[in-house]
Amino acid sequence: MLLVVISSVSPHPHHLFEYDELSQYVDSHQEEYVQTLRDWVAVESDSSDVLRRPDCHRMMDMTAEKLQAIGGKVELVDIGVQELPDGKTVALPKVVTAQFGSDPSKQTVCVYGHVDVQPAKLEDGWATEPYNLTDINGHLYGRGASDNKAPVLAWIHTVEAYQALSIDLPVNVKFIIEGMEETGSNGLDAMIVAQKGTFFSDVDYIIISDCGWLSRRPALTYGTRGNCYFFAEVEGPKQDLHSGVYGGTVIEPMTDLIGILGGFLTSLSDRIGKILIPGIREAVAPLSDEEWKMYQDIEFDIESFKSKIGVSQLMYSNKVDLLAHRWRYPTVTIHGIEGAFSGPGSKTVIPAKVIAKFSIRQVPNMDPAVVKKQVTDYLYSVFAKRKSPNKLKVTMIIGAKPWLADTKHPLYEAGKAAVKRVFDVEPDLIREGGTIPIAKTFEDVTGKSIIMMPIGGFDDGLHSQNEKMSRYNYIEGTKLFIAYLHEVAHLKKD
Amino acid sequence: MLLVVISSVSPHPHHLFEYDELSQYVDSHQEEYVQTLRDWVAVESDSSDVLRRPDCHRMMDMTAEKLQAIGGKVELVDIGVQELPDGKTVALPKVVTAQFGSDPSKQTVCVYGHVDVQPAKLEDGWATEPYNLTDINGHLYGRGASDNKAPVLAWIHTVEAYQALSIDLPVNVKFIIEGMEETGSNGLDAMIVAQKGTFFSDVDYIIISDCGWLSRRPALTYGTRGNCYFFAEVEGPKQDLHSGVYGGTVIEPMTDLIGILGGFLTSLSDRIGKILIPGIREAVAPLSDEEWKMYQDIEFDIESFKSKIGVSQLMYSNKVDLLAHRWRYPTVTIHGIEGAFSGPGSKTVIPAKVIAKFSIRQVPNMDPAVVKKQVTDYLYSVFAKRKSPNKLKVTMIIGAKPWLADTKHPLYEAGKAAVKRVFDVEPDLIREGGTIPIAKTFEDVTGKSIIMMPIGGFDDGLHSQNEKMSRYNYIEGTKLFIAYLHEVAHLKKD
Repeated sequence: MLLVVISSVSPHPHHLFEYDELSQYVDSHQEEYVQTLRDWVAVESDSSDVLRRPDCHRMMDMTAEKLQAIGGKVELVDIGVQELPDGKTVALPKVVTAQFGSDPSKQTVCVYGHVDVQPAKLEDGWATEPYNLTDINGHLYGRGASDNKAPVLAWIHTVEAYQALSIDLPVNVKFIIEGMEETGSNGLDAMIVAQKGTFFSDVDYIIISDCGWLSRRPALTYGTRGNCYFFAEVEGPKQDLHSGVYGGTVIEPMTDLIGILGGFLTSLSDRIGKILIPGIREAVAPLSDEEWKMYQDIEFDIESFKSKIGVSQLMYSNKVDLLAHRWRYPTVTIHGIEGAFSGPGSKTVIPAKVIAKFSIRQVPNMDPAVVKKQVTDYLYSVFAKRKSPNKLKVTMIIGAKPWLADTKHPLYEAGKAAVKRVFDVEPDLIREGGTIPIAKTFEDVTGKSIIMMPIGGFDDGLHSQNEKMSRYNYIEGTKLFIAYLHEVAHLKKD
Repeated sequence: MLLVVISSVSPHPHHLFEYDELSQYVDSHQEEYVQTLRDWVAVESDSSDVLRRPDCHRMMDMTAEKLQAIGGKVELVDIGVQELPDGKTVALPKVVTAQFGSDPSKQTVCVYGHVDVQPAKLEDGWATEPYNLTDINGHLYGRGASDNKAPVLAWIHTVEAYQALSIDLPVNVKFIIEGMEETGSNGLDAMIVAQKGTFFSDVDYIIISDCGWLSRRPALTYGTRGNCYFFAEVEGPKQDLHSGVYGGTVIEPMTDLIGILGGFLTSLSDRIGKILIPGIREAVAPLSDEEWKMYQDIEFDIESFKSKIGVSQLMYSNKVDLLAHRWRYPTVTIHGIEGAFSGPGSKTVIPAKVIAKFSIRQVPNMDPAVVKKQVTDYLYSVFAKRKSPNKLKVTMIIGAKPWLADTKHPLYEAGKAAVKRVFDVEPDLIREGGTIPIAKTFEDVTGKSIIMMPIGGFDDGLHSQNEKMSRYNYIEGTKLFIAYLHEVAHLKKD
């Protein structure tokens, strides 16, 4: 082993680092890593569907077993129950914590990740079975492959590689892995608060690897949007009715719902999805000159972005506007309607109860609690004007805050060095339009610094059909984490 | 048998009629009739779903076999293929024709019915498996039980009863049974035109039993609304996108779709589903004083109607307005959206392609061809104003005309006499808000008179969850048809 160590030429002369040996170990275990990912993807851990809750529980068990198998001190933490819209409750997936090393002279990092996934069905337009990981030209297609199962596994492989080669972990490593991220990390906030003085007491930094690069260039992420997810339910007759027999006599819930949705996000002759609910746009932090300049410098190819998603025209035609509206302005999306006819073909039904699902992405300085009140007040007031006998119920089922880090922090300097070692380039410093709800909580509760270190590709199709993780990102990403632990070891303790 | 004939006291002294014997035969075969209905309901002959087309073909075969088994001269008529929105084609279910008797001295009636059904799934809110006919307190629950399998069978039982008792059919009876009614009787128009001089040449009257009574009182139906069913498809990105990652950069198809839907049927602060598309309301025949008077006299209990469907308030609060808007004014219903997220739970997706399904019921003097142009012109013009890069495609997939009969016609007098014999009451003369697309075609092409003689109950839940046919309506309905053939036999030939 000594020979290998000597042959490794570290770009950091102040400490010895067996990077090449660890890197070769990772390369030679690629097939095993892919198989483990396949086993994990096979579990349909869709946290949004309560009928899939047993799969979510199983996924947490598998995560705990895997961490235990490599010698971690593992706990499955009960975080209570979830209250459903109908008032019933269902057990939340337990949170898995693990600890590797407790040397007080070392830094301690805590890796956060999640192993629940978004819904996926073959008939949504997947080219392969979403829960059967399928390798096509080095791309591993499967729901949850990139978001977030492979990154969680890459962190596990990182610890495993150090151990397999009997190389001391340069830092103490903790894990906190949850199973409710895709629906707003229900129950995790309280758990973090509860364990602030115990599990988190010796944690120096929190690392999140739950997003993707902006281009082919590796990136570090310093901000995410939050998300407020709403159900607007309009309930009318006690059951669906024949539209021929009853049309003209019944005040139809769909008419009410489309009526209130049509008005709240955009004027009808305006394609821009501006949120017209009073107070929302006013809360947003203005774009500073510094930010504007920073966005100017980021490499972002609008044409390739357009061609990747297959549109001829975007909401904005210049880079700064596009990045700004992707990262630091709110946006509203209507995801769909539950309860109405959604199959192929035709059905002449008046749906009795319809539930619109829409969400508003949160940015500094918006506050989910305020947004909840703004949206519900607005919808109830618009609905009241219709004088409909149907019943409207507006519920905010997710209220996740945005998060923003200081890119001058040493954690980010360490990140740049690790990227440089593995990929031999400077990373882009980017924000994320999506939400990692727990980042803000970690920051507020533990007071620790956070870095987001993505390994997903820019075209992984998170939440979409044909989500994938490339072998390249999975394997080189594992090496990035290996290198990062080494860099963090040499930061001055906070 | 002679004794029985003598003991039968006919209310029509001018001709002998073995009504009691036939009626007893029907009563004693009730369980057999229910079992046949169970077999038919078990076939998921949903004509709107091309994946169910094999079941539709099987249903036509079963219908032909049943008619053949009781001695009919049966044909399965190939009516060609259906063109799908994507340009592909699929075979239409064949049309079954049958003939019982060809005595030129007798009247010839042609019974029209259909054996295809609307979609149904247990999870839509059915209390029982929709394709497993389930008897609860004499109500036979199952998709298609009332619409239109039991009425078709009741006509078959009618012929069978006469034959089983070796009683001459008083009229020649023909059947024309199709399998595409629920999606607009695709292909049937052309078949009727083609067979005008052959199959239809000796037909005197056409009888349709594909609707229900208005109350517990039996009814004869003299009008139906037509239906124009539209798909409005908005297509954007090449696949669904993560709403966090892409929200704010992409012009979302759902925003476009909700935008154009919200405007076309009602002003946003108005619960009344008035159709605002230019030209549509202007075409409607005005309500005459005579009609107004007629509606006044019909027995219709608003409170029981409200309680049956479970609403606290209807579109109108007086009987005449309610019946008029149910029967002789157009109405628009948005049935749902295909392609958007429609499951339970939450999913943060930007759907790439969404298809709104909506329909407009047709009344005299609307013309589906004109309505098609009005709706598509309007939607394209509203969409054009949005300057969206997404693509809108509006298709009218059903264009069925309304139908109206003369209630003074002897066919209706014969109907009243038959109702009087079986139920000992005068029938209500009613219209139907739903559509029986082929009625207008029969009238226009063959020039024959048509009567609609429903046997379905007012609360059968057509197209809805928990559709049912009551044993009472099924069995007494069969007797009504038996009596009606007798009455028709004594009409003067047209």
